[in-house]
Amino acid sequence: MSEKVVVIGGVALGTKSACRLKRVKPEAEVVLLDKDEKISYGGCGIPFYVSGDVAESEALQSTAFHMLRDEKFFRDVKGFEVKTGVEAVKIDRDAKKVLAVNKQGENLEFDYDKLVIGTGSRPKNLGIKGQDLGNIFSIGNLDDAIRIKNLVASGGVGTAVIVGAGFIGLEMAESFADMWGIETSVVEVCDQIMPGFVSPAMAQMAMRTMENNEVSFYTGEKVVEFTGDENVSAVITDKRTIEADIVIMAVGIVANAEIAKEAGLDIGPTGAIVVNEKLETSDPDIYAGGDCAEILNLLSKKPGYYPLGSLANRHGRIIGTNLAGGNASVDGAVGSWVLKIFEYCLAGTGLTLQTALDSGYDAISVMMCQMDRAHFYPENHLMHLELIVDQSTRQILGIQGLGTGGDALVGRVNTIAGIIKYKPTIEDISNLEFAYSPPFSAAMDIINALANIADNVIANRLNPVTSEELATIWDEKDNGEYFFIDCREKPDAAPLVEKYPDVWNNIPQGEIKNRLEEIPKDKNIILVCNTGMRSYEAQLNLTEMGFSNTKSVYGGVKMVKDWGLDI
Amino acid sequence: MSEKVVVIGGVALGTKSACRLKRVKPEAEVVLLDKDEKISYGGCGIPFYVSGDVAESEALQSTAFHMLRDEKFFRDVKGFEVKTGVEAVKIDRDAKKVLAVNKQGENLEFDYDKLVIGTGSRPKNLGIKGQDLGNIFSIGNLDDAIRIKNLVASGGVGTAVIVGAGFIGLEMAESFADMWGIETSVVEVCDQIMPGFVSPAMAQMAMRTMENNEVSFYTGEKVVEFTGDENVSAVITDKRTIEADIVIMAVGIVANAEIAKEAGLDIGPTGAIVVNEKLETSDPDIYAGGDCAEILNLLSKKPGYYPLGSLANRHGRIIGTNLAGGNASVDGAVGSWVLKIFEYCLAGTGLTLQTALDSGYDAISVMMCQMDRAHFYPENHLMHLELIVDQSTRQILGIQGLGTGGDALVGRVNTIAGIIKYKPTIEDISNLEFAYSPPFSAAMDIINALANIADNVIANRLNPVTSEELATIWDEKDNGEYFFIDCREKPDAAPLVEKYPDVWNNIPQGEIKNRLEEIPKDKNIILVCNTGMRSYEAQLNLTEMGFSNTKSVYGGVKMVKDWGLDI
Repeated sequence: MSEKVVVIGGVALGTKSACRLKRVKPEAEVVLLDKDEKISYGGCGIPFYVSGDVAESEALQSTAFHMLRDEKFFRDVKGFEVKTGVEAVKIDRDAKKVLAVNKQGENLEFDYDKLVIGTGSRPKNLGIKGQDLGNIFSIGNLDDAIRIKNLVASGGVGTAVIVGAGFIGLEMAESFADMWGIETSVVEVCDQIMPGFVSPAMAQMAMRTMENNEVSFYTGEKVVEFTGDENVSAVITDKRTIEADIVIMAVGIVANAEIAKEAGLDIGPTGAIVVNEKLETSDPDIYAGGDCAEILNLLSKKPGYYPLGSLANRHGRIIGTNLAGGNASVDGAVGSWVLKIFEYCLAGTGLTLQTALDSGYDAISVMMCQMDRAHFYPENHLMHLELIVDQSTRQILGIQGLGTGGDALVGRVNTIAGIIKYKPTIEDISNLEFAYSPPFSAAMDIINALANIADNVIANRLNPVTSEELATIWDEKDNGEYFFIDCREKPDAAPLVEKYPDVWNNIPQGEIKNRLEEIPKDKNIILVCNTGMRSYEAQLNLTEMGFSNTKSVYGGVKMVKDWGLDI
Repeated sequence: MSEKVVVIGGVALGTKSACRLKRVKPEAEVVLLDKDEKISYGGCGIPFYVSGDVAESEALQSTAFHMLRDEKFFRDVKGFEVKTGVEAVKIDRDAKKVLAVNKQGENLEFDYDKLVIGTGSRPKNLGIKGQDLGNIFSIGNLDDAIRIKNLVASGGVGTAVIVGAGFIGLEMAESFADMWGIETSVVEVCDQIMPGFVSPAMAQMAMRTMENNEVSFYTGEKVVEFTGDENVSAVITDKRTIEADIVIMAVGIVANAEIAKEAGLDIGPTGAIVVNEKLETSDPDIYAGGDCAEILNLLSKKPGYYPLGSLANRHGRIIGTNLAGGNASVDGAVGSWVLKIFEYCLAGTGLTLQTALDSGYDAISVMMCQMDRAHFYPENHLMHLELIVDQSTRQILGIQGLGTGGDALVGRVNTIAGIIKYKPTIEDISNLEFAYSPPFSAAMDIINALANIADNVIANRLNPVTSEELATIWDEKDNGEYFFIDCREKPDAAPLVEKYPDVWNNIPQGEIKNRLEEIPKDKNIILVCNTGMRSYEAQLNLTEMGFSNTKSVYGGVKMVKDWGLDI
């Protein structure tokens, strides 16, 4: 007799594991339960449905060949039973039964030999005063999305407040501001957007690209109350009141791990279900993965929580293989991600400087701003990149980037995502063999160049100053301690020389060794060019000539301006 | 006293090594010799200059900040001496001298402590009858490019023949056909374009994209003579005569290794200079790299020859570091490349199926055709991919791809390029953590899915048939041995059912298990859908039902049509 497999949850992991099991072992007897009616949808597509990029919600629920993934589809095409509107409420591990309730309130029982928990996650509930007012939404499932889209499409929404500046918050902000022309504000309790995913500097540059698209940000502010009659009309923070016809709560998500916890399965520090490399829970007859499970971060060596549709799908396949008697495993995660924000793309993998330091690495980060392909090729995009390395071992720990060339940036991040678990050094990345042709890359690819910057910083050849540090210096620019040298050619430097005649000096890098008498030895020399290449060269020239008090501005005027220093 | 460094050759490797040396060790005494007047140009940009994408030849010779890289630039900005028009003719290793001749025919001598050979490469000379006629060019340097562009810009060129269908040949073909509207033919002695870089099937698909852009191809044909009066007027092959107002010889390049060979340095089987991991030649006081050196292929474990601007630049940096007393090295190459052909991109890394078999691997290749991002996202591109794996160890050996989403394809190839030297298995690629968001990737990235196909093929779950094999079958379709099942829904399959009522049958995959009586057990069942996903599922269904004679068409109707089978 064939084993009975029960799967709880039918969004990504559940359906994938059942499909894979049936492909490998067609005789398997599988039943999948989901409390909702709509299953197997691309939840990550919700913001694009709300924006209108994806016209119909059915598209998120359909295959690439336009078949709706409903109960009938899974039965006829995939060969297993799906029961929607059936909520699993308890796992009886002794009797190997799942107890459930259907929409009619009837109690149901499902025997299992093997069980898959794919209960996913739900939006965090902060318990803010007034949060039950109408038109306050979180993005929990496709029905929420449909309600939001119907509301904005009805035309009655003039102002929106998004609470939370993570993935969903920022995607929803773009969706509202870009496609619907809604006056959109984002409130974030942390001091930066995308906390934990990018450095403050990268966050600031990304935030500014959204501000340039009419989204307002209030970071470091806490929402304390929602007010309104039946529907919300304003959001009250600890600093201000913001009008809102609609509010989206996007303050993070938590694993739906209660049913596992009540069954006595191990729950980890992230609040999600503990699984091993085969995605078995602490009960080897029960698997879990995706949004309800935690997984080892290969870099921090700590349990991580990665509620991503991509991971859920890959986990589903592993579970399906193992249910069929195979031996699939995953060693952990490195934490790759990407976010589209208007014409920009923000992406990363591995650790940030802060998470690397928190994990005990002797970490530094280096930054650059450079074109993503041959500078002589007519189409190219500037990319801001930050690379995190361990100074003592020279191991690469992470990368984050921002740029308009989305696929090109994502391709670079993916290259690091693939290699990073092998503990590559700076030299490995410096030599990494990117496919080269001028329409796609520079001869020395931007990532090779970024590793070279790390090499130069660690060797103390490049002594950099970040945009943030420059902002502090700029405030004190008239105190007589600083001497700014614009290392570009005269026409490029002229506007700033004219604007700041007292502090801004122009000495093109090629002339610097012949004009040393113009440079004071008793001041801090701040070297700046367009993107940071010539100012580095100038720094080397001055070091050779005995100057020890020089700093080269990372990413040059381009990065400083994108960061938001108004020079 | 500082060491004297002489560098021979100033295109990519030579200038890069000198620049890096001076950055790390400013006191180094460096002189660089080049026989040409124009140096330090982006040779890989030449086809884009001829096409007009790059308007001025100076752009190829300039920095990202628009400074011409000439003798003055290197002296003033980089701090070393460049002597153009000075040809190194002999290396006297005993006396540690380079003997050279300048344009005036004067003999010069340059003492060295360390020497860098960056003599690069030159076009192969096939010695074909009539090859000295006017308007027959090869792409040896920037001056050749300027002459070609001036000729086509003068308007007198109606027909062009390119000899050789490698990188430069195909780029020049696009340049002529696309930007100048010239009637362009490519003659290639091998049976396919890009021989050694892609499989015959991938080559055929790529060739067809160019044929759709009015470029004619004659593969498997040998040029035997050029005819004309003063200038060429026709190309005579072993099969035909082709009119030609201009001919581009792009039959490959050879290392300029003669000066090294005459000095007694080791020359390898590729005809290029042998170097170790530090890029030292057999004489530790002499370095070489870039187009004149050979380097270990990390996958074939054989010496490889990679005349690429990207490798030359990275080699230059390594040599510069080592000249300055550092300890940089490169362990070998994996052979990454990319080619833009009209709106398509063809790219790859590692071995092809043939080069893998030639290297002794138990290799197979698997193919797929799939969208590069979430199918519900409005903009996406189909990508054809071929993955080469070793069946016994499951090691990934290479990938090649063709698609219109250039940066997205290159990004995927680079991900494999980075990881491949660590000998990843199919499982490592199946789990590879691509950054996911619907505008950039599917939840299960196309490369994850490709690895899964390899898994399914090796496990005998997927029994595929390639477009080439299908073409043979298609010729015999009326012999009664085959039964074709189109597994798509009725409206998708209808046109082919109507066109081939006797052989083309439609059973949607979801119905197949209920319509078994329609399927003959004594025939070969050929299953086909749009891109190969549903035909795989149908194959699993039929296998479960006791059919052992099924084949699923790789990449479905999409790939078959792109390959050129007229069904």
